[in-house]
Amino acid sequence: MSPERYQKINQVLAKRQPDLTLLLEEVHKPHNVSAVIRSADAVGVCDVHAVWEQNKALRKGTAMGSQVWVKTHAHSSLSEAINVLHQQNMQVLVTHLDDTAVDFRDIDYTQPTAILLGQEKTGATDEAVALADKSVVVPMVGMVQSLNVSVAAAVILYEAQRQREAAGMYHIQKVSEQHIQETLFQGGFP
Amino acid sequence: MSPERYQKINQVLAKRQPDLTLLLEEVHKPHNVSAVIRSADAVGVCDVHAVWEQNKALRKGTAMGSQVWVKTHAHSSLSEAINVLHQQNMQVLVTHLDDTAVDFRDIDYTQPTAILLGQEKTGATDEAVALADKSVVVPMVGMVQSLNVSVAAAVILYEAQRQREAAGMYHIQKVSEQHIQETLFQGGFP
Ligand SMILES: C[S@@+](CC[C@H](N)C(=O)[O-])C[C@H]1O[C@@H](n2cnc3c(N)ncnc32)[C@H](O)[C@@H]1O
Ligand SMILES: C[S@@+](CC[C@H](N)C(=O)[O-])C[C@H]1O[C@@H](n2cnc3c(N)ncnc32)[C@H](O)[C@@H]1O
Repeated sequence: MSPERYQKINQVLAKRQPDLTLLLEEVHKPHNVSAVIRSADAVGVCDVHAVWEQNKALRKGTAMGSQVWVKTHAHSSLSEAINVLHQQNMQVLVTHLDDTAVDFRDIDYTQPTAILLGQEKTGATDEAVALADKSVVVPMVGMVQSLNVSVAAAVILYEAQRQREAAGMYHIQKVSEQHIQETLFQGGFP
Repeated sequence: MSPERYQKINQVLAKRQPDLTLLLEEVHKPHNVSAVIRSADAVGVCDVHAVWEQNKALRKGTAMGSQVWVKTHAHSSLSEAINVLHQQNMQVLVTHLDDTAVDFRDIDYTQPTAILLGQEKTGATDEAVALADKSVVVPMVGMVQSLNVSVAAAVILYEAQRQREAAGMYHIQKVSEQHIQETLFQGGFP
């Protein structure tokens, strides 16, 4: 591995935010999954959770190489996934287009946070809305009824990035030395 | 047209931002164009400009019905498109991944603004960078080299929306009565 690449990987790992994550509930289209994972990587998210009905694996090659850098965790049920996140003391926010949802900018993303994204056609399930701690919405003033799912994810992630940057959270290394060594080993020799 | 629909359309038109627009430089994939136009509609953008090499028309049906609400203007060359925008006193910002680009949050989007988006693979052309007034970038701290184009567009558009909301710009009707009458006529009877 070249010294430049070694340095780049180390810099990236130093800014990782293990307490900020996404949970994809049946998000199916590869180009959406790909776009979501690229945005996650770009703001320092290193773990993404997903629930698929038949426990399908994330298709390979959809995220332009970022899967090495963003670890995906597959869960067989939504309740299992949310349990895991709650055990990590995360607030679970479901993105949901209803009138009681909180404006996404009124959330404190410096807290450990998981953002739940719903399926392209049907949105988040009733179960997701019931199990999540809060519903959040990206306000819209147009005629269309929803944003693309990867767009909604990114707009919220960049608000989290803004708050975490302001709070100095990108200047404290949070991933463990072991994680760093493993990642250097796996990702350093593509 | 039902009274509810009539009222909805009027509410939407009252919040339109004719002095905020996008310029797509050879953005090709229908799902990206679709996602971009949905985001534009959602923040009140009512005009989107596009340049395609062979003057291809925007494919129909890709934006889930929002094309009625967001007018697309096709240009045969980039310089022509930028001329038109400059004649409207717009600052033209090219989204561009280079070290000299300004952080997208350091821009004043309450000014008349056009955001230029580059092609999925190759990005914005040298000509675009030369003709635009400024280069802007969405900061990234991960391993991937770029965001999906519709994601980058939305993150910037929602920063513009935030600034314009704070400046009270969604509370002043800016589109003309004529535009309102035309839109009610075209869009009211789908
Ligand atoms: C295309 S939308 C689903 C639309 C579905 N018809 C509904 O009513 O929920 C797919 C996902 O994108 C996200 N999404 C889209 N627009 C959003 C918005 N304005 N605010 C928050 N999340 C949004 C949510 O995760 C949603 O489940
Ligand atoms: C996938 S990128 C093109 C990548 C290309 N390899 C390059 O170096 O420009 C497609 C378009 O998305 C937008 N884009 C992607 N990431 C961006 C970022 N971090 N900041 C600003 N614009 C971005 C730009 O409009 C860019 O032209």
